[in-house]
Amino acid sequence: MISLQDIGELELIKRVELLVQQAQDKKVVLPLGDDCAVIKVGNKFLLISSDMSVEDVHFLSDKFPPTAIGWKVMASAWSDIASMGGEPRWALVSMALPKRISVQKVERIYEGMMEATKFVNAVIVGGDTTTSYDDKIVIDVTVIGEAIHKKYITRSGAKPGDILAVTGTLGNSSAGLVALQKDLPETFLWRSQWYPVPRIQEGKWLCTKANVSAMIDISDGLLTDAEHIAEMSGVGINIHKQKIPISEELSIFCKEHNLSIDNFILGGGEEYQLLVTVPQEKWKKIQNKFNKKFSCGITEIGYVTKEWQGVRVDGVVPSIKGYEHFR
Amino acid sequence: MISLQDIGELELIKRVELLVQQAQDKKVVLPLGDDCAVIKVGNKFLLISSDMSVEDVHFLSDKFPPTAIGWKVMASAWSDIASMGGEPRWALVSMALPKRISVQKVERIYEGMMEATKFVNAVIVGGDTTTSYDDKIVIDVTVIGEAIHKKYITRSGAKPGDILAVTGTLGNSSAGLVALQKDLPETFLWRSQWYPVPRIQEGKWLCTKANVSAMIDISDGLLTDAEHIAEMSGVGINIHKQKIPISEELSIFCKEHNLSIDNFILGGGEEYQLLVTVPQEKWKKIQNKFNKKFSCGITEIGYVTKEWQGVRVDGVVPSIKGYEHFR
Repeated sequence: MISLQDIGELELIKRVELLVQQAQDKKVVLPLGDDCAVIKVGNKFLLISSDMSVEDVHFLSDKFPPTAIGWKVMASAWSDIASMGGEPRWALVSMALPKRISVQKVERIYEGMMEATKFVNAVIVGGDTTTSYDDKIVIDVTVIGEAIHKKYITRSGAKPGDILAVTGTLGNSSAGLVALQKDLPETFLWRSQWYPVPRIQEGKWLCTKANVSAMIDISDGLLTDAEHIAEMSGVGINIHKQKIPISEELSIFCKEHNLSIDNFILGGGEEYQLLVTVPQEKWKKIQNKFNKKFSCGITEIGYVTKEWQGVRVDGVVPSIKGYEHFR
Repeated sequence: MISLQDIGELELIKRVELLVQQAQDKKVVLPLGDDCAVIKVGNKFLLISSDMSVEDVHFLSDKFPPTAIGWKVMASAWSDIASMGGEPRWALVSMALPKRISVQKVERIYEGMMEATKFVNAVIVGGDTTTSYDDKIVIDVTVIGEAIHKKYITRSGAKPGDILAVTGTLGNSSAGLVALQKDLPETFLWRSQWYPVPRIQEGKWLCTKANVSAMIDISDGLLTDAEHIAEMSGVGINIHKQKIPISEELSIFCKEHNLSIDNFILGGGEEYQLLVTVPQEKWKKIQNKFNKKFSCGITEIGYVTKEWQGVRVDGVVPSIKGYEHFR
């Protein structure tokens, strides 16, 4: 018997896509394999995505304030709309809950989801509640956004010669998880793990004003998500490790606790920064405008090449892996 | 500490609705409390609903063929589109899966979901896969349908004097669950539990041709779902128990095994038959046309009244309860 553990999440997704893609519908503009599906409703394009979070897999219940559980599951779902440059609109929330959980905790979780939804100027319109079999919370969030002027950015448009760039700083969220697990009082890093920021305004701007060629949000780690762009675009990507933007807090944290920073910045997931590719001739202008407009900033960290397929770090195939379910 | 067990699912939903309804959006036509939310996209109305299923709560993994797991979770989600009279369009599927589950079983589950989706002429456009914490499968399905000519039927339109009617026969699915649990070889009843039929064509017809005043699908049992109509419409409902349509298979099963039929037909959930209220003067004509057109048939089982609030059976407040999570 072959189990999911043997094949991993990425192979499972490929097999499911084969099963599902048999069906066709002309109103499905972009069906599977990107951050969102794109469907045509009247003269509008809607972006749709689902994101399932499991207690003690995606969030540590005893290390998270309940509002942070709600914020994180909702913000990570909205991040998929950001990664295509869309405008957030509506969300549905399904929750499997233990019978013995306190009502107050459930209400705090919903409040966190509401805050993240208000933050992106959207609304929760429905959902489902059910009993969880074991004492673990499972939350699935479906988000729907709208493509502004029918325009959205996929993972598949990167071209050799493009600049690879990333918003904000990397590694804070995964370092925050380690700090929480080890009870190290690093509030900046904790907050990066608890309250990730979906880059909605940044994504919309990069889509409509900057015409970036490919975009993805970093949910599974820089290397894994860069690999998604490389694979879907049929190109190679080179990352200059020294150029990856790092917060002072992460730098001090790694030095103080003698931790390698590479795992956090290359492999650490749940960052929800945007990773984009930009035609070289446009890059300087886009960078200047972006950095004036958005406090998170955008940084060049590599380039797209036709010399090889897949992702390399300073020209070398990396040994660090991003997060993959079932492995 | 007050737990979910203390307040139950219905009270939880009321509390969540209070939290969530603070936010408003003019494009949300019908936000919470019905089978689907209704949102306005351009000049179209979309119906959206999510349905979460948990292994050994919603389906018994060792008593279900894997394709039946997929069919059931998907068909029950499409039934929410049927219950508002909508046209099925797109679905997203999120699954939490144990690491040790066989790839083949997962593929069979997806095949079942595909079959139920093809059955209603819709497509799966996206979703998520993740590791489940314990060894239980959790599946959340989000379905999107379209209101034909912007028309849909809610739970809130029942008027005193209306006829209460139901499609098909009741009790088969919940009796099938008992037969499976007790290993009684009742293939008709097993199949009712495994492969419920979402009444899409029937729902569309009742919405667009029959102008029924209220509609719901029976997912939590006749009494609970009639109660939803009564509450949302601000009316009373009387059910004539002797009029409830019963299959020969269920009748024989109950006699052979000395089981009370009342729990199955009044309290048994997961029927996915449609429960409607119809203005009295229209009833005979609608019944005749429906029974000519649809093999499942439609039967008068009671009436709507202003004499009391809530649901009674032959004039008496019933002691049987439908299914409620967390209790």
